[in-house]
Amino acid sequence: MKSRINVITLAVTDLDRSLRFYRDGLGLASRGIVGTEYVDEVTGAAGAIAMFELDDGLILTLYPRSELAKDANVPSRPPSSPEFSLGHMVGSKAEVDAFLAKAKVAGGAITADPHQRPWGIYSGYFRDLDDHLWEIIWNPDFIP
Amino acid sequence: MKSRINVITLAVTDLDRSLRFYRDGLGLASRGIVGTEYVDEVTGAAGAIAMFELDDGLILTLYPRSELAKDANVPSRPPSSPEFSLGHMVGSKAEVDAFLAKAKVAGGAITADPHQRPWGIYSGYFRDLDDHLWEIIWNPDFIP
Repeated sequence: MKSRINVITLAVTDLDRSLRFYRDGLGLASRGIVGTEYVDEVTGAAGAIAMFELDDGLILTLYPRSELAKDANVPSRPPSSPEFSLGHMVGSKAEVDAFLAKAKVAGGAITADPHQRPWGIYSGYFRDLDDHLWEIIWNPDFIP
Repeated sequence: MKSRINVITLAVTDLDRSLRFYRDGLGLASRGIVGTEYVDEVTGAAGAIAMFELDDGLILTLYPRSELAKDANVPSRPPSSPEFSLGHMVGSKAEVDAFLAKAKVAGGAITADPHQRPWGIYSGYFRDLDDHLWEIIWNPDFIP
């Protein structure tokens, strides 16, 4: 296995709403919703997604929960957390606080106020509109 | 927001078992379980994790579901999918098939056999031991 993750796809309930959260709320660049012309005849999955090409080359994709279930051929279920978290590192404790404040203004929910954790980081968590967890991290050993 | 995801943390039921799946089954390099000496006095979360430093700089982390819930201060719930999927691109259709076969041997479950999708990729999905979805993708526009 060449060890690389190229795409992170988040299941969302409302594609438009989540696009606004990530694009307008958090400021990620996106061409908006694309792929609306596609339906997979094998699975029935529709192709409409919103994509964000991140600065590190990773692609963050929003895809309706129902369509991801069809595309992957797994049962569709209501949202659940914590299945995972995405970690975003910033340059200072103040930036952690500011980022969480921005996420809250955008409609996210702060689940854990930031604090110094014994393993050497200062971090806090927010949930996006579909309960996906993000941990915003200041790690003194890492300069983003 | 500097658009970068630095860490993907997957919630797992059994840290040893999932470490074996990703390290021994899929061949990802890891120093094994680290951080066993830490407990966060604020949240009660234990620090033991397994980390994989991927070739692209991203860190894939396995963390017990119960501890992620404490760390993020969210309710712990049983596994659910599809909350998200991780996409791994390979160099040919044959590599998609081979990768899925390898994941199956390692104990993963193929949920969707690979096929050509109308949006221009050939892909299939497997679930890891905790129902996390991986899509293995051949995209003719992308050379990994």
